[in-house]
Amino acid sequence: MSERVCVIGAGPSGLAALRAFESAKQKGADVPEIVCFEKQDDWGGLWNYTWRTGLDEYGEPVHCSMYRYLWSNGPKECLEFADYSFEEHFGRPIPSYPPRAVLADYIMGRVEKSGVRDYVRFRTPVRWVDYDQSSEKFTVTVQDLKNDHTYSEEFDYVVVANGHFSTPNVPDFEGLRMFPGRVLHAHDFRDALEFKGKDVLLIGASYSAEDIGVQCHKYGANSITFSYRTAPMGFDWPDGFEEKPLLQKVEGNTAHFADGSTKEVDAIVLCTGYKNYYPFLPDSLRLKTGTRLYPEGLYKGIFWLSNPKLMYIGAQDQYYTFNMFDAQAWYARDVVLGRIALPSREEMTADAKKWVAMEEACENPEQDIDFQTEYVRDLIQNTDYPFLDVDQVAKLFKEWEHHKEEGILTYRDRAYPSVITGTMSPVHHTVWMKALDDSLEAFLDVRQAAE
Amino acid sequence: MSERVCVIGAGPSGLAALRAFESAKQKGADVPEIVCFEKQDDWGGLWNYTWRTGLDEYGEPVHCSMYRYLWSNGPKECLEFADYSFEEHFGRPIPSYPPRAVLADYIMGRVEKSGVRDYVRFRTPVRWVDYDQSSEKFTVTVQDLKNDHTYSEEFDYVVVANGHFSTPNVPDFEGLRMFPGRVLHAHDFRDALEFKGKDVLLIGASYSAEDIGVQCHKYGANSITFSYRTAPMGFDWPDGFEEKPLLQKVEGNTAHFADGSTKEVDAIVLCTGYKNYYPFLPDSLRLKTGTRLYPEGLYKGIFWLSNPKLMYIGAQDQYYTFNMFDAQAWYARDVVLGRIALPSREEMTADAKKWVAMEEACENPEQDIDFQTEYVRDLIQNTDYPFLDVDQVAKLFKEWEHHKEEGILTYRDRAYPSVITGTMSPVHHTVWMKALDDSLEAFLDVRQAAE
Ligand SMILES: Cc1cc2nc3c(=O)[nH]c(=O)nc-3n(C[C@H](O)[C@H](O)[C@H](O)COP(=O)(O)OP(=O)(O)OC[C@H]3O[C@@H](n4cnc5c(N)ncnc54)[C@H](O)[C@@H]3O)c2cc1C
Ligand SMILES: Cc1cc2nc3c(=O)[nH]c(=O)nc-3n(C[C@H](O)[C@H](O)[C@H](O)COP(=O)(O)OP(=O)(O)OC[C@H]3O[C@@H](n4cnc5c(N)ncnc54)[C@H](O)[C@@H]3O)c2cc1C
Ligand SMILES: NC(=O)c1ccc[n+]([C@@H]2O[C@H](COP(=O)([O-])OP(=O)(O)OC[C@H]3O[C@@H](n4cnc5c(N)ncnc54)[C@H](OP(=O)(O)O)[C@@H]3O)[C@@H](O)[C@H]2O)c1
Ligand SMILES: NC(=O)c1ccc[n+]([C@@H]2O[C@H](COP(=O)([O-])OP(=O)(O)OC[C@H]3O[C@@H](n4cnc5c(N)ncnc54)[C@H](OP(=O)(O)O)[C@@H]3O)[C@@H](O)[C@H]2O)c1
Repeated sequence: MSERVCVIGAGPSGLAALRAFESAKQKGADVPEIVCFEKQDDWGGLWNYTWRTGLDEYGEPVHCSMYRYLWSNGPKECLEFADYSFEEHFGRPIPSYPPRAVLADYIMGRVEKSGVRDYVRFRTPVRWVDYDQSSEKFTVTVQDLKNDHTYSEEFDYVVVANGHFSTPNVPDFEGLRMFPGRVLHAHDFRDALEFKGKDVLLIGASYSAEDIGVQCHKYGANSITFSYRTAPMGFDWPDGFEEKPLLQKVEGNTAHFADGSTKEVDAIVLCTGYKNYYPFLPDSLRLKTGTRLYPEGLYKGIFWLSNPKLMYIGAQDQYYTFNMFDAQAWYARDVVLGRIALPSREEMTADAKKWVAMEEACENPEQDIDFQTEYVRDLIQNTDYPFLDVDQVAKLFKEWEHHKEEGILTYRDRAYPSVITGTMSPVHHTVWMKALDDSLEAFLDVRQAAE
Repeated sequence: MSERVCVIGAGPSGLAALRAFESAKQKGADVPEIVCFEKQDDWGGLWNYTWRTGLDEYGEPVHCSMYRYLWSNGPKECLEFADYSFEEHFGRPIPSYPPRAVLADYIMGRVEKSGVRDYVRFRTPVRWVDYDQSSEKFTVTVQDLKNDHTYSEEFDYVVVANGHFSTPNVPDFEGLRMFPGRVLHAHDFRDALEFKGKDVLLIGASYSAEDIGVQCHKYGANSITFSYRTAPMGFDWPDGFEEKPLLQKVEGNTAHFADGSTKEVDAIVLCTGYKNYYPFLPDSLRLKTGTRLYPEGLYKGIFWLSNPKLMYIGAQDQYYTFNMFDAQAWYARDVVLGRIALPSREEMTADAKKWVAMEEACENPEQDIDFQTEYVRDLIQNTDYPFLDVDQVAKLFKEWEHHKEEGILTYRDRAYPSVITGTMSPVHHTVWMKALDDSLEAFLDVRQAAE
């Protein structure tokens, strides 16, 4: 097969695409030539941790939004690959909420094993993509940073997998310009110890606010104040935490909130989410969406309606992560291989509309989980991706939500059974609030718990 | 004239280009159509201050490298526009070392007056530039961020004026990954008050290290440690400062230096300079240079040797700033208008080589100043840019260097005469070390000094 597929990004989504083609190849299929362009020096996407913030050693925006002491905020059983279990990777069952380094090791482990590294051109950001109607080919222009060299190549398909939790959404508030302390977005947060003894204000009421706030508390911040726009998180917060309505302005160190209350703060962390950002795509190919479970303009949440040879993987908000990216990648691959025929443009548009309407009808996290469960089920039942019991995954997601309600500082002490192997996970040797060392070595020393 | 000129960037260099064409137009010349694309929401380049760091509200790299409490680090008399004096702008003489807001007001004042704002398309970063040999035109592809719309236009000339003190050069050091405090580049430094009471380590031995160190001291840092790679700055540092050889590694909060000494530090500021960064240019048009007084590949420090319809303004290291950008802009304009004919490619290459050799022969700051003085003189004597007594400017630069040697905390208390108007500048009402308010309003209250 002389066709060529370009994959933009070697994070979990791009790697899922590489794996999908590789898996078909191993089973004897004739697969197109695959080229994956990756901006960073290694794969793993957000999981490729760096101390850097802002711009990197080549002047490119730092991709990483992760930080030290970040632990999985959902049970690992909900994101396990159907074709590569945690047990297979670590040689034994491990606890349900691993720290970043452990999850990263797992994600990379699958791809290291599969030999897809040769497909990836590292340190090569994509600068621009064009589509030529007459030749029906994409021209992808990239910069090889190491050799400071730009070049263009032609492709029949492009898979956009550059992630959408890397470019921060950074609102302004009155007085930030004169605030006499640090103001940062969650994207640039790296080390909670910087905030030891400080009064920290976090804007936002979602995962980043919750996790960074809890973490600063864990590592010795003096107080944590959350400020919400729509609704408070509403957890039963321990002493040292409080939730306030939206920040109105800052005067000196004083933060003023919508209810008229004030608080003296030393640092402000904007946990205000991220943007889908595609600076390398022209209008005709560019998805324009906020963070949502079913972005408009994509058939099956993947195929760009006005030109389905352009595919997006992982462009939606995520309960499901790695296994959903796999489900998408296997489906996209089967379309490229001609195993699945896309319906007419009208049918695709109508189908996408139906899913968007279903998403918009969701009213709470449980319904969101059910929605994304149906979405993943719909994809995997049409490919040879190994069976994944999504109903079981959905059940775990709901238990997790419940456990968070029960104790925001203790939910990570729980354990769940693997959906893939059925094995019950062990309890971690140290309760999470006391587990200050987040290294892989410390975490994997699970025997202590049993002894 | 139906030709079109594209200017990339509306900082001082891009604005000089706009001013140059406007000035010719006002004198009756037939000038081409000018379109200036500017990424930010306003003009002024680095002088357009923002509290933001990392990525901006549209996800674009924040351009600003300036910070609160930044004062001119050279006498304003060395950068005064020959066609618009400080006296004309402020209606009276002002002290020699103004804070950022005052210089910004002066720069914008000239262009506000001239009505070139209509040429600028704000919030429109250039994404890609191509040159077509057959049509002899450039295609410039941009993104209108406000309307989230990409488009391309053709031009006969392109002026690259996107600045080169915005994309940080960020080296790595052993242990930064685990340092339990803030690590940042000078580009992301905003407010010295964040470092009050802290022990601050600054890597680098040039303007940023010096100025950020002095400033953190001024606003209450506990100690300032500089670490140099090549040579120390060697000022007669007051108590609270020390200079160390290069950082070797960090272990916890302990910094280890090349001489075996150590220091406990709370924060690390990498004052390691900037990169010339042109992510929108292909190999055939892209300048590849470090920060230097005469980048290789440019005739007159402006014209891209392999395609002189591409021009760079302000791409060199800078003693001279605003008046040098003017000198370049007037020269570039006269080439576009056909008033100056470029010599043959061979002659241009030989000329550039000669200047590069002269630059490389410079051995100290005085010789560097003389070199750039000759460079500016060479440009202005060939255009109608108003007379500028560069020998007088060079003399002031040398006095300034001398005054810095005499007192690194007191040199900003000096005053110098204007090279343009001859008027002696008044002494500021407050000595710099006690001038904590850096607003335009506080600074301009110069009468207090006289009373
Ligand atoms: C703080 C944080 C914590 C998270 N924690 C969890 C968790 O605990 N569990 C979980 O399952 N999920 C978590 N996530 C969700 C995360 O989105 C996914 O785990 C996953 O990383 C998404 O994979 P991706 O490949 O779609 O995108 P990314 O991981 O973002 O990877 C995209 C890749 O594209 C590359 N790229 C970008 N632009 C270009 C370009 N122009 N040219 C070439 N390459 C480019 C990037 O360098 C990167 O390698 C977290 C997200 C955040 C922000
Ligand atoms: C910390 C610091 C302090 C300084 N202090 C002084 C001082 O006291 N006195 C002095 O004379 N000089 C000072 N300088 C030197 C400074 O370089 C000049 O004053 C001046 O700002 C340079 O002008 P410029 O137009 O070349 O670049 P910039 O001021 O950097 O302007 C470049 C413009 O291009 C725009 N741009 C960038 N990329 C794109 C794109 N892709 N598309 C569209 N637009 C784009 C930017 O948004 C910006 O507006 C300082 C520099 C720094 C870093
Ligand atoms: N593993 C971990 O521990 C971990 C930690 C952090 C993040 N993550 C992951 O990172 C991803 C992103 O999470 P996120 O929390 O950063 O983003 P998010 O879920 O999109 O939430 C964004 C939050 O910002 C608020 N917001 C947006 N604009 C605002 C404004 N102008 N003013 C005030 N508030 C504003 C939103 O409020 P409204 O509700 O009003 O819209 C919302 O609360 C998720 O996938 C999450 O799982 C994981
Ligand atoms: N108005 C103001 O007050 C003000 C304040 C700050 C900056 N500025 C302006 O900003 C511009 C940039 O100044 P700058 O100081 O940021 O940059 P710079 O003048 O280019 O200096 C860079 C410094 O970083 C050092 N360096 C580079 N790589 C290094 C590495 N890997 N390890 C250790 N050291 C390294 C260099 O050391 P070597 O000597 O070994 O190469 C040099 O000392 C100048 O135009 C300046 O005038 C003005």
